[in-house]
Amino acid sequence: MSEQASASTSPSGFFTEENSVATVNARMGRDVDPRLAEVMACLVKHLHNFAREINLTQDEWDFGIDFLTRTGQICTQERQEFILLSDTLGLSMLVDAINNRRPSGATENTVFGPFHVEGCPVRQMGDQICLDGKGESCLFIGRVLDLDGNPVAGAKIDVWSDNAEGYYDVQQPDIQPKWNNRGVFVTGADGRYSFVGIKPVSYPIPDDGPVGKMLNSLGRHPYRPAHMHYMVRAEGFQKLVTHTFVGGDPYLNSDTVFGVKKTLVAPFTRVESGNTLWRSDYDFVLARPRQTR
Amino acid sequence: MSEQASASTSPSGFFTEENSVATVNARMGRDVDPRLAEVMACLVKHLHNFAREINLTQDEWDFGIDFLTRTGQICTQERQEFILLSDTLGLSMLVDAINNRRPSGATENTVFGPFHVEGCPVRQMGDQICLDGKGESCLFIGRVLDLDGNPVAGAKIDVWSDNAEGYYDVQQPDIQPKWNNRGVFVTGADGRYSFVGIKPVSYPIPDDGPVGKMLNSLGRHPYRPAHMHYMVRAEGFQKLVTHTFVGGDPYLNSDTVFGVKKTLVAPFTRVESGNTLWRSDYDFVLARPRQTR
Ligand SMILES: [Fe+2]
Ligand SMILES: [Fe+2]
Repeated sequence: MSEQASASTSPSGFFTEENSVATVNARMGRDVDPRLAEVMACLVKHLHNFAREINLTQDEWDFGIDFLTRTGQICTQERQEFILLSDTLGLSMLVDAINNRRPSGATENTVFGPFHVEGCPVRQMGDQICLDGKGESCLFIGRVLDLDGNPVAGAKIDVWSDNAEGYYDVQQPDIQPKWNNRGVFVTGADGRYSFVGIKPVSYPIPDDGPVGKMLNSLGRHPYRPAHMHYMVRAEGFQKLVTHTFVGGDPYLNSDTVFGVKKTLVAPFTRVESGNTLWRSDYDFVLARPRQTR
Repeated sequence: MSEQASASTSPSGFFTEENSVATVNARMGRDVDPRLAEVMACLVKHLHNFAREINLTQDEWDFGIDFLTRTGQICTQERQEFILLSDTLGLSMLVDAINNRRPSGATENTVFGPFHVEGCPVRQMGDQICLDGKGESCLFIGRVLDLDGNPVAGAKIDVWSDNAEGYYDVQQPDIQPKWNNRGVFVTGADGRYSFVGIKPVSYPIPDDGPVGKMLNSLGRHPYRPAHMHYMVRAEGFQKLVTHTFVGGDPYLNSDTVFGVKKTLVAPFTRVESGNTLWRSDYDFVLARPRQTR
């Protein structure tokens, strides 16, 4: 920032089209938090370069102001349209990726999503998490390992998925039972986990607001491919926030929030053993904490 | 866009940190409006490059989502916080500049601002526009010319300024008289204009919302240097939207919306003729319309 600012701005502070970035960034005070100064200078640079590169018209600017205003105004306690905007522009996935770089072999992160709930009861390995009896029953099974292939004991595995109609329980607060399609499991010495849920189904993100209109204008659908959410935490390892995706889902190559990574596509095999129709095997490999800067 | 998308995205649509821009932009449909596609592809590129260059943390992203939400939610019919955000980041001035490039010698544009009102009565040359008797009286005088120095007849000059307390009449709707410190004047064959108003005073933009907090965190004040607004329209010329700034104003070098251009700083000379304390001479030079692309 400081190079650019000092290189081309005059002490006048007067605006010119050519020096717009330097003029704005030179205006910051001397006692500003250094990280804030760095982030804002970078934001101003990219914002101006966007407008300049695309020759943004006054009408387009008007539209943008109105779009952002509508996006803010539809937000409520239950609805966060700016997160949907970030998600559908791939920004959420990029920020997640930047902050969760891992050695090859470790399970990759994906977006957390808005539907996790803290406080779900701990269940026994093998337990059923689908409490409403709806959907195609599926056994989820595998191990939690470290990068050397050793089992991780005491790993807390938090899982959640949608129901057979594509809704998370928090989206239907009036429908019982509570904690439907959610569970917390803790691994033993063998690192193994298993539970019975349903084969998740694909669902649309809320698309009746500005972001839905945007997707429509861009010729995009609002669907996410079917997935099971996982958060795996264990002492001495990085927290893993991820999904496994149902291999073969029709939206696998067009997740509207870009959450799919190649390594997160899991097998879902037809088994028909007892009441269970499907089985999905997946091992989670945890990485040690990154060096702090 | 298309080069970048085709160069590095796989048909899988799966996300990688490195190919995030291409992955997102390749998702657009085939029948999208070409200009929309171009603008969005450029926006995604700069948005991702910003996050990548600055290594945006999850907490910073959270803060950004919350900041934008609060910015949207404070907006009302009378308050447009996203415009204030655009103004204080210099984006409004940049968009104005991009869309109003003029040959050297023509009067430069600056931001329109939110306080113009259509429908102000046309007054006679020399008329008083300050109707409440408050403030330091000032004669505004000059000519409307073309680039060859010829007078422009029939030019409609719309002027507006704040009152002696720094408020536009629309900010104090309950206070009479109506149209205080506003006027419309039409030039005759000599292109001359003159009217009596007050020497405008510097004023803060609304700073009790998220943008005010941002300015404060950046060590910036919310003031605009004193200025008279002008909109000059004449058949066969580009519409001119500008201000003249009061030379010597303490905020001249630090306009919080970056509206000051060197050529727009006008002399305000102490005259004390009758009740009039000041005189400001300024000629407006209009440019012919640009070639349409
Ligand atoms: Fe989900
Ligand atoms: Fe103003």
